[in-house]
Amino acid sequence: MSSAAEQKGNEGFKGAKVESVRVTCTAPVNIAIIKYWGKRDETLILPINSSMSGTIDQGSMCSKTTITASLSAKEHTMSLNGERVDFNAKRLQTVFKALLARAEDLVGPLPEKRVLVKKEDWKLYKMNVDSANDFPTAAGLASSASGLACFTSCLARLLNFKEKFKGELSTIARQGSGSACRSLYGGFVTWKMGVKDDGVDSFAEQVVSQDHWPEMRVLIVVCGRGSKAIGSTPGMQGSVKTSALLEYRAEKVVPERMRLMKKALIEKQFETFAEVTMRDSNQFHAICMDTHPPLRYLNETSWRIISLVHEFNKKMGRECVAYTFDAGPHAVLYLLDDVMEDLLSHLLYYHLPQQHGLAEEKGFVSDRLKLITKEVEINGSDKLNGDIKPEDNGVSQIIVSKIGDGPRILQHVVVDEDGNELSLSV
Amino acid sequence: MSSAAEQKGNEGFKGAKVESVRVTCTAPVNIAIIKYWGKRDETLILPINSSMSGTIDQGSMCSKTTITASLSAKEHTMSLNGERVDFNAKRLQTVFKALLARAEDLVGPLPEKRVLVKKEDWKLYKMNVDSANDFPTAAGLASSASGLACFTSCLARLLNFKEKFKGELSTIARQGSGSACRSLYGGFVTWKMGVKDDGVDSFAEQVVSQDHWPEMRVLIVVCGRGSKAIGSTPGMQGSVKTSALLEYRAEKVVPERMRLMKKALIEKQFETFAEVTMRDSNQFHAICMDTHPPLRYLNETSWRIISLVHEFNKKMGRECVAYTFDAGPHAVLYLLDDVMEDLLSHLLYYHLPQQHGLAEEKGFVSDRLKLITKEVEINGSDKLNGDIKPEDNGVSQIIVSKIGDGPRILQHVVVDEDGNELSLSV
Repeated sequence: MSSAAEQKGNEGFKGAKVESVRVTCTAPVNIAIIKYWGKRDETLILPINSSMSGTIDQGSMCSKTTITASLSAKEHTMSLNGERVDFNAKRLQTVFKALLARAEDLVGPLPEKRVLVKKEDWKLYKMNVDSANDFPTAAGLASSASGLACFTSCLARLLNFKEKFKGELSTIARQGSGSACRSLYGGFVTWKMGVKDDGVDSFAEQVVSQDHWPEMRVLIVVCGRGSKAIGSTPGMQGSVKTSALLEYRAEKVVPERMRLMKKALIEKQFETFAEVTMRDSNQFHAICMDTHPPLRYLNETSWRIISLVHEFNKKMGRECVAYTFDAGPHAVLYLLDDVMEDLLSHLLYYHLPQQHGLAEEKGFVSDRLKLITKEVEINGSDKLNGDIKPEDNGVSQIIVSKIGDGPRILQHVVVDEDGNELSLSV
Repeated sequence: MSSAAEQKGNEGFKGAKVESVRVTCTAPVNIAIIKYWGKRDETLILPINSSMSGTIDQGSMCSKTTITASLSAKEHTMSLNGERVDFNAKRLQTVFKALLARAEDLVGPLPEKRVLVKKEDWKLYKMNVDSANDFPTAAGLASSASGLACFTSCLARLLNFKEKFKGELSTIARQGSGSACRSLYGGFVTWKMGVKDDGVDSFAEQVVSQDHWPEMRVLIVVCGRGSKAIGSTPGMQGSVKTSALLEYRAEKVVPERMRLMKKALIEKQFETFAEVTMRDSNQFHAICMDTHPPLRYLNETSWRIISLVHEFNKKMGRECVAYTFDAGPHAVLYLLDDVMEDLLSHLLYYHLPQQHGLAEEKGFVSDRLKLITKEVEINGSDKLNGDIKPEDNGVSQIIVSKIGDGPRILQHVVVDEDGNELSLSV
């Protein structure tokens, strides 16, 4: 006998009737370098400008989702970080319905390629979604983007969705959470705004892969606790409605920056990359300020990081570190690995000396860095530490990361009515 | 004998040779409601957009200058707030030379109208300038504008300068300090940007007088100590050079706001006035954010005031208070007198309880306000005061004021070689 089950080492699997299918997937966080702010269509989530982001290595942080489709379950259920949430939430449903409508037959392994679940039968299965973020939720770092990207990728695999055109899946993820579409690819990714009313041309596309610029590093600097600031959805609605500058930004400023940034990435020109990244972050926060009432996302610690980066670049004589801030106080720094130690020493010992222990614990204090520390301690740490107030909240965490790949399928398991499992290749 | 001296009650004045002439003048602070940010000509101080401001009552704060022109003095001298400063500073010299070139004969009183100093003789006199700001210099509140307006007005009187066209003196003050030109008039004042290269059409003009809207009040809320922020001259140079949004603001946004604001002032529509004032302040700070590196003028206390005003307006169901911030952290609030008590109670007891004593001392705590206080104290001041931290710096002073008049000549005295004085009417 040469069944699919045997070939995969899954003896016992009959598959006459598939009771459940289980897929586990992880998806990365992405951090915009050209910001998305403002929708032209709230339902389809179509943006008023194109945007670009770096995909963060999933070893540092990611979302993880397991979806189990069961024939015998009575209802769809979902949990996020262990807490029950509503599977019927509008944007989840949009993604679910779009993928269900495009579901294909689930086919077993070669050579038989036996149909295990017919595409018209997927609607008989109930979904159990178990989703979690592998990073502090308090960080407020693009968790909805990675979460929705993960949900979309996981469900797409489960329902055997096949793209009819490149980027189609990203148009579905986009409807779950705009910037989620950018988390479907590794490296640096652009989200093309598109012009069509149905959004079919508003999709994500890889600019360069994660292997293109291996020296690139990403430092996620968590600045204080979660703020009471307005969320990005109502925030951008306010900006679209009231900012006198947003339309000009979207139509005149961003297109040129997209061209500049793409060129800088392809040619690995870090200084241009850094300058455009910082300017675009600042312009996004300028638009927030120009909103009525104004939106404030940066706190004192965020501003300390901004000053620190400009000081550091001045000291180094070039733009060698870039900061960017989304709709929250946390800084993300892009830099090349050759300035990592200098930057960390500057950051940890001049401005955030209370983080010393953390840095050592995390294991990114090298011998050279320890030497620098010693010098700083000798030469005037008291004076330099003088303006750090503990009540500032300050920096609560630093995550050292790099550019990484797109969503990963970790497992794909089919279970028959007798409980026998078939693992499909991932 | 029916001499000029006798007519003015200045017996003994001969005036064959005038040893010195002394003029004392005060000039008001002005607070922009449509902001000036960006020069198209650094030397002539020509702006990239028109602006508008309210003139603050000189009873609350003003600059005061005495200029004594002496024939026997050896050199020009100047002091500011009691400290020697350089009379040869470029912008002071620009004003001085412009007025000296346009000096007229100093003529005694009617009926003789005797020439006391011939216009060609003014250059023989040395100036002693004694200037002071009648408000905390730490406040950083437009002191250069009122100071230069005062210097210009004082010197213009001394040299008997007569305008050839309405606003000519403001074109001279403008070259001393751009926004100084708006301090030459009372009420609400516009500074027309003009289009000519020589700046002859870039002058100030009164929109409505100080009597037009007598209910208007101005609250100057000093937020913390002087900051280390970049000054407005290099700040706006940075914005002109690097902000991608500034030109659009200047060319497309401001002209419409100038029209709206003028109409709102003439028709006394406070809600429009308030909304445009807040939006324009925020847009100015948005431009600062969009500058590379970004300029930050607002601190935590400034933001607390912004939130407080929006909360208060929401509670009141209309835009009844407007905030505005210049290139510093201090808030200026415009409001009508009928909401003054409600606002002060909101400000002092909900958000700044530590200022209670100050408010009583200043004498603007009415019986009604005391009643409100009592209620707040009973109903939960502990809870409300919980988030005030003493190390915030917070609000260090509140000045309650209104719209006032333009520069005032306080005295004009001519002294002959024997020391006899002749007071000219002011």
